[in-house]
Amino acid sequence: MSDSGDFVFHFGGHAPKRTVASGKPFTVFTEDCFSGKLTSTDGKPREVAPFPKVNPLTGPIAVEGVKAGDIMAVHLVSLQPARDWGVATISPNFGLLSGTRGAPNLQPEQEERVWIWRFEPDGRTLATKAANGARLAVPFRPFHGTLGVAPAHDEVRLGVNPGDFGGNLDIPDLGPGATLYVRANRDGGHLYIGDGHYAQGDGEIAGTAIEGAFNTTLAVERLAPDAGFDWPRLETDSHVGVVGVARPLDDAVRIAVAGLVCWVSGMTGLDLADAHQLVSQACTLRIGNMVNPAFTVLCSISKDLLGEVSAHGGAHARLRGIPG
Amino acid sequence: MSDSGDFVFHFGGHAPKRTVASGKPFTVFTEDCFSGKLTSTDGKPREVAPFPKVNPLTGPIAVEGVKAGDIMAVHLVSLQPARDWGVATISPNFGLLSGTRGAPNLQPEQEERVWIWRFEPDGRTLATKAANGARLAVPFRPFHGTLGVAPAHDEVRLGVNPGDFGGNLDIPDLGPGATLYVRANRDGGHLYIGDGHYAQGDGEIAGTAIEGAFNTTLAVERLAPDAGFDWPRLETDSHVGVVGVARPLDDAVRIAVAGLVCWVSGMTGLDLADAHQLVSQACTLRIGNMVNPAFTVLCSISKDLLGEVSAHGGAHARLRGIPG
Amino acid sequence: MSDSGDFVFHFGGHAPKRTVASGKPFTVFTEDCFSGKLTSTDGKPREVAPFPKVNPLTGPIAVEGVKAGDIMAVHLVSLQPARDWGVATISPNFGLLSGTRGAPNLQPEQEERVWIWRFEPDGRTLATKAANGARLAVPFRPFHGTLGVAPAHDEVRLGVNPGDFGGNLDIPDLGPGATLYVRANRDGGHLYIGDGHYAQGDGEIAGTAIEGAFNTTLAVERLAPDAGFDWPRLETDSHVGVVGVARPLDDAVRIAVAGLVCWVSGMTGLDLADAHQLVSQACTLRIGNMVNPAFTVLCSISKDLLGEVSAHGGAHARLRGIPG
Amino acid sequence: MSDSGDFVFHFGGHAPKRTVASGKPFTVFTEDCFSGKLTSTDGKPREVAPFPKVNPLTGPIAVEGVKAGDIMAVHLVSLQPARDWGVATISPNFGLLSGTRGAPNLQPEQEERVWIWRFEPDGRTLATKAANGARLAVPFRPFHGTLGVAPAHDEVRLGVNPGDFGGNLDIPDLGPGATLYVRANRDGGHLYIGDGHYAQGDGEIAGTAIEGAFNTTLAVERLAPDAGFDWPRLETDSHVGVVGVARPLDDAVRIAVAGLVCWVSGMTGLDLADAHQLVSQACTLRIGNMVNPAFTVLCSISKDLLGEVSAHGGAHARLRGIPG
Repeated sequence: MSDSGDFVFHFGGHAPKRTVASGKPFTVFTEDCFSGKLTSTDGKPREVAPFPKVNPLTGPIAVEGVKAGDIMAVHLVSLQPARDWGVATISPNFGLLSGTRGAPNLQPEQEERVWIWRFEPDGRTLATKAANGARLAVPFRPFHGTLGVAPAHDEVRLGVNPGDFGGNLDIPDLGPGATLYVRANRDGGHLYIGDGHYAQGDGEIAGTAIEGAFNTTLAVERLAPDAGFDWPRLETDSHVGVVGVARPLDDAVRIAVAGLVCWVSGMTGLDLADAHQLVSQACTLRIGNMVNPAFTVLCSISKDLLGEVSAHGGAHARLRGIPG
Repeated sequence: MSDSGDFVFHFGGHAPKRTVASGKPFTVFTEDCFSGKLTSTDGKPREVAPFPKVNPLTGPIAVEGVKAGDIMAVHLVSLQPARDWGVATISPNFGLLSGTRGAPNLQPEQEERVWIWRFEPDGRTLATKAANGARLAVPFRPFHGTLGVAPAHDEVRLGVNPGDFGGNLDIPDLGPGATLYVRANRDGGHLYIGDGHYAQGDGEIAGTAIEGAFNTTLAVERLAPDAGFDWPRLETDSHVGVVGVARPLDDAVRIAVAGLVCWVSGMTGLDLADAHQLVSQACTLRIGNMVNPAFTVLCSISKDLLGEVSAHGGAHARLRGIPG
Repeated sequence: MSDSGDFVFHFGGHAPKRTVASGKPFTVFTEDCFSGKLTSTDGKPREVAPFPKVNPLTGPIAVEGVKAGDIMAVHLVSLQPARDWGVATISPNFGLLSGTRGAPNLQPEQEERVWIWRFEPDGRTLATKAANGARLAVPFRPFHGTLGVAPAHDEVRLGVNPGDFGGNLDIPDLGPGATLYVRANRDGGHLYIGDGHYAQGDGEIAGTAIEGAFNTTLAVERLAPDAGFDWPRLETDSHVGVVGVARPLDDAVRIAVAGLVCWVSGMTGLDLADAHQLVSQACTLRIGNMVNPAFTVLCSISKDLLGEVSAHGGAHARLRGIPG
Repeated sequence: MSDSGDFVFHFGGHAPKRTVASGKPFTVFTEDCFSGKLTSTDGKPREVAPFPKVNPLTGPIAVEGVKAGDIMAVHLVSLQPARDWGVATISPNFGLLSGTRGAPNLQPEQEERVWIWRFEPDGRTLATKAANGARLAVPFRPFHGTLGVAPAHDEVRLGVNPGDFGGNLDIPDLGPGATLYVRANRDGGHLYIGDGHYAQGDGEIAGTAIEGAFNTTLAVERLAPDAGFDWPRLETDSHVGVVGVARPLDDAVRIAVAGLVCWVSGMTGLDLADAHQLVSQACTLRIGNMVNPAFTVLCSISKDLLGEVSAHGGAHARLRGIPG
């Protein structure tokens, strides 16, 4: 693998570049998905960042004491934009509203376009200019599109893939203050992070968010193995949820909902049917992306509805106490 | 059709039972999906409401002046629960987490269960008792699961179906203060409404929401034909969106997103690529249900991001002025 | 409905045009899907046969003695081409390799093309001319794309739909000598037939087969109700099979395979697991079409592998005895 | 990776175990998917071959002179069963007619069953005994479920995966006399083969075929790079086809059909629309499996319909000349 520089393009197959202590914050720089090389509206995405050299990842980062089978609570303390601009594209054979290599058609291709989105002075809005001169503006909603660990069973996957190891999930909830739980597949866990998004609509329809570099502070806590754990889980101050990854999206939803039902049952002592009923009347489904090799969705529920329960021994609350 | 009582079980094929004036509020009673006959936890859903006598509809209601091809703005002024309880079930061969007639498997079936959810004294919470004695409670979030018109091309469809005519959409945004736009397929439009939900999680996973009867006040305004109009649209005070109906959910999302991109382009004057970009960075996708013969999703965007535009000539704002 | 001419465009909703005796052969003329109006390569499909006036159906034909709930064995004795040419098209927003209204994209549309295929003197080959002057030729493999009955529960569906009532199945096995079993949903059964195909590849990828008119001789036998019967079944001299109709194709396959497993179990006395095993090691899956509102597939198995069993009391063998 | 024995469980990541000359036959032994350890009906599949130690692969085998980017014509000269029995199973959470980890439900699981199928004296039939004492018998139709090369971009995948590198395709056409074309992703190509099937129905519905060990003779010819080549191709004496791999099956079909249309256009000089038309009227779609992490399908067309063309410079005909 040509993964020899500061960034890598695979999940798995590397020696760790850095080791951090469980529960201690640390800061990383993450590049945007074009390695910072797509800087103007006349840039050529597939020339500056030819496949598979897309989605550069920072890592892998080993976590002290983590053994294969342990759960890792990966908490995002803060995400600081490293630039005053982000970039987005529409490309031929890419995106939900285009044929792709994995779902082709015989129509003429859509044209390529590049947008440079810049922060407004308020720091809370990103704006760009449309072809007709209009100003487009959207709120700054930072998160990491990609966060994961080395895959199970010694697989090595390109950085564009999501899976049960996390990876290219593109779920907007994975922003400041969120905790992602994933199972370590090897000693040290080997964490990868990248694909910063300054904003993204649900589904990442066009295939790119507003892609931007970040200086991100994280903390990872090692937790004991958990027999009921399978797909990644996400906790915020208000919600707990389970991530599903599959195609079609139907199956991703099945994974996420069934996972949440079982988790709620385990946490609350409700039988499966009651947990099923509660989730069915109160869950939120948020589509992450529909453009990757597999689609992603988060099924979550308000912690207020679960009573006096604590997910994974209160790891989120502990990590939340780290100053941002 | 045995649609001769107070309620009907089809979209299409009836003479109107009532005619209302464009823009004037009127009130209807809608039954729950079991016709009010499933009243206790030991009730048998498929005996009290055997298929296809499920999802009774109030209607059809003709609207004065509506011609085939016109757009109808159907505004929900208020939804008043008609009972102090609602009902929910889990049934064999039904729901997203079960094989079904349309996607069977060879596993043993899941067991049937019925829950009666009752309003708490605050009127804002519904509660029921779990098998282990725990109290389950969820917020009251009223909406109509079913709202639609007589289908195009003289088709007659059972009331469980969603489609481009609206119907059994199960989208939680379709509550008090929302406006659904649909195209009339025949003179008078022939509106059908029912399937009240006191609460429902995204996807209506188990196959039923907390099903409840309503006294609902609506107003329907006749709007001019619109060449760009195809799938139903939904407007609230804050958002505009387009509904997609298909299986798999992937295709429903394609319909909704492509529809919103085109609508945004039409309203704002942005070219398709810029509209695609704006929607891609800021849209919300909300899954309605994944248990009907076709799945539903709403793709919406904040009106704040669209500048000084007005959907359908400001119909929503006008209808919103009607006292609840 | 504007179904007042010689042909109709819906399944359901009509009085029968003709009544035939059970088990007795009769002959009908069926138009091609463009009503015979697309006669040259510069014809405009959507002008000569504008939607929904596509796929004209011959019928409904009532069968004496048939009661709702009975099984109808519909046997195709012979299919005689009524013309020396058939027609095929590629159209924008249509076909498996194009975005469609139900699964849209934002690419430019593909161009429309029309091919007139003519019988070669041998009567066993159809040929046409390619844009580069080459001769294209394919074998004559006649069958009816559309064969079905009035839908259940008083639904009325456009003639382009397949379903559990049969309809627009586009399964090439439905040719001379085949028997389709469907359940009658109303007294008389009300049979519809049309959409003759002179040839079609699996999947009807481009959206049309070589569409041609037929003079077709059928015989329909009334059979007793069958509690285990659900989706349509197809029998030939060598195979029995079950038809699945759904989207995505995955679910159509689930319907067809589960249906065949259960039927084989019922016919042979094997338990479900053994029937599952036998079907799994020996079945054939043939994709009918992937362009209709729902996709179709036939799962069949050689009768030689089933031992001394007889499907539906030997109806196929009886009907096969009718001189062609 | 624990891939240190005679067999490996991944595609990619290994040094070659053997190097063969281009175009020269060689013979390998391949184990069955349970490593030969499931030998009786009371065996426990998940104990004798616990995941991920399933589907052992013979290889990798390097081919002299092959450079990354070359096309490899992998020809199956002969498949000789290495045992007089094969084995098949039905397992919980596995197979098309069960919920799975990637598409879960909440129903009780189906029971596990094991069948030992033995060759009849004629050597052309396999038989086993059903629970009710009946004899089940199916024809011997040998092929390799798994044949592929090291994946692109340095990915390492478990042996249960199919993909553009070939792999666990489970396409019954891949038997004696067939040639699979795949692109080499690294120098030497690194071929893997295994998963012998004595018989399998389309779709490998239950999740296993009649799994058996083989002594197989192959020959691999190095061919020049081909700019139009993408997904694997399969050639027999009568047909050429393209393999699609995806979920849902719909997208696998899109890949296979679009691939064949483009290939036919390239071979014949027909424009894309004419090639699309020809394939649409004459193609065969054969479903390989619907139980792997991705589903597979082969879209093929009779070579008789393509005129005087030769696929890949006549490689198949040359390799077919090797004595079996």
